[in-house]
Amino acid sequence: MYVRVNEVGPRDGLQSQGKTLTVDARAQLVKALVDAGIRYLEAGSFVSSKAVPQMAGTDELFGRLSDINHVRYAALVPNMRGYELATASGARVVNVVLSVTDTMNRKNIRLSLDETADVCAAIAERGRREGIEVQAYLAVAFECPFEGRVDPEVVATFAHRMNDAGASKLIIADTIGAANPTQVRQVLDLIVPELGAERLSCHFHDTRGMALANITAAVDRGVAEFDASIGGLGGCPFSPGATGNVATEDVVLLLNSMGLDTGIDPLDLVPLVRLAEELTCVTLGGKSFRWLAQEYNRTHGGDRHGG
Amino acid sequence: MYVRVNEVGPRDGLQSQGKTLTVDARAQLVKALVDAGIRYLEAGSFVSSKAVPQMAGTDELFGRLSDINHVRYAALVPNMRGYELATASGARVVNVVLSVTDTMNRKNIRLSLDETADVCAAIAERGRREGIEVQAYLAVAFECPFEGRVDPEVVATFAHRMNDAGASKLIIADTIGAANPTQVRQVLDLIVPELGAERLSCHFHDTRGMALANITAAVDRGVAEFDASIGGLGGCPFSPGATGNVATEDVVLLLNSMGLDTGIDPLDLVPLVRLAEELTCVTLGGKSFRWLAQEYNRTHGGDRHGG
Repeated sequence: MYVRVNEVGPRDGLQSQGKTLTVDARAQLVKALVDAGIRYLEAGSFVSSKAVPQMAGTDELFGRLSDINHVRYAALVPNMRGYELATASGARVVNVVLSVTDTMNRKNIRLSLDETADVCAAIAERGRREGIEVQAYLAVAFECPFEGRVDPEVVATFAHRMNDAGASKLIIADTIGAANPTQVRQVLDLIVPELGAERLSCHFHDTRGMALANITAAVDRGVAEFDASIGGLGGCPFSPGATGNVATEDVVLLLNSMGLDTGIDPLDLVPLVRLAEELTCVTLGGKSFRWLAQEYNRTHGGDRHGG
Repeated sequence: MYVRVNEVGPRDGLQSQGKTLTVDARAQLVKALVDAGIRYLEAGSFVSSKAVPQMAGTDELFGRLSDINHVRYAALVPNMRGYELATASGARVVNVVLSVTDTMNRKNIRLSLDETADVCAAIAERGRREGIEVQAYLAVAFECPFEGRVDPEVVATFAHRMNDAGASKLIIADTIGAANPTQVRQVLDLIVPELGAERLSCHFHDTRGMALANITAAVDRGVAEFDASIGGLGGCPFSPGATGNVATEDVVLLLNSMGLDTGIDPLDLVPLVRLAEELTCVTLGGKSFRWLAQEYNRTHGGDRHGG
């Protein structure tokens, strides 16, 4: 079975870094990821460059993306203005984020939960009319840093709302890395039977080390798409305690080992982790990276930057 | 549901350390683990102190163990002489290790697979006669560093052999951390229906970051006992590439989060990881440790070594 690995490092990863990369460097990272076999990638966001300087120039970046017929590049947008900028820059896939608690929306973007849902629904509806895929993130779907545990029924309600508005995909996001496999099953058992596993994706953070356990539970429920960030790059700057996107190399190694097909060789990600480290000047690498790097050096004759 | 966490740090963890701890230090670590709620613990091994100096004085250690009516202390033995030494020192639970590939046994203990199985079976039979529980580890049950992937049928064959000999428990061990959830399900689907999940335990290493995913798969198949090592202490000195027992704090946090009952508060393990670090002079801590330590410091007022 083919499982899609959606790389979010160039957006979710880079946006929280202290160092702001040039568009050149971002384009280099994206191209290297695509060369390693990544076919689903969140390339950047169309947000205020005052608020998120790390994402300035995403319009220029979209103009430089290669293999646009073989790679599904997505752009995150916060509102209709972002949608317009993204589509004007050539984005055919647009991501919106609907945190499913009121406090998270107010703290994050100064809108109520209902107001955010309206914004996201309007973008999904417009996307459907204009032939643009709109993917809806359901953020803090398991636990909110302000309101605590989230009722799975709430997640299901907003999944249906975004589905009805025309969202092409619903991404259940554990924004603060607090989910566990039991919760994952509970949420998916509510949503999968009605909307279908093929419409879903999951986004896990590895803050408490449980991301791969959660992915295992989601695979068991039929989910076949997962977000991941090269080397574990990033986190969410707006969520207290939210560090650690699950690392792409960990997700690929897990899925491949399980006999699923990601189309990616995890060893090919070793130089990618090192490239991301060089570009961002932070130490990266998922749980499997030490082992993968040993394997890489063994099979590539110790040529640290080869391959 | 109660799930047993069997702490193996004082044996499996310490035996591979460069620094050999005094019996005093080992007894201090064991007592601190018991004080934190650990009720199942592999305290040491009765092996040649020439071959494994880290385990010298395990007889003395067994004489000092506290709460022996409430804590299930086990001793690893390599042969009948070890069994006799262990039981003479008061051990009521004895562990034997049967690697399920021929090469692993020859490289590890210079016996063939059949010879090792005979030794383990004889110990299990004697234990049954003498009222001593003998637990049989089925090592390299998923992958052997010398022979590669292991056929689940082979694991099942030796599980039955040890069961027939009188072993009280069968511990499926991923000695080199190469297992994945699909394999775990395959092996358990062969063994659980015939021997019962309550007779099984699993021992995972986190070398490739998949231990918690594997535990999730095993819980799903009814397994309710898992080995773990405080802070991830240890590995297997005889297995190339075998680093990283899964950390006790990671296992406890996962299981508790899933709504299972381990009887242990993961925050109580934070000072234990620090104690193990001080005693062994190595940096320890599982995947969740950074988060747990933050939580610990937040809830314990930053008193680094407090209760």
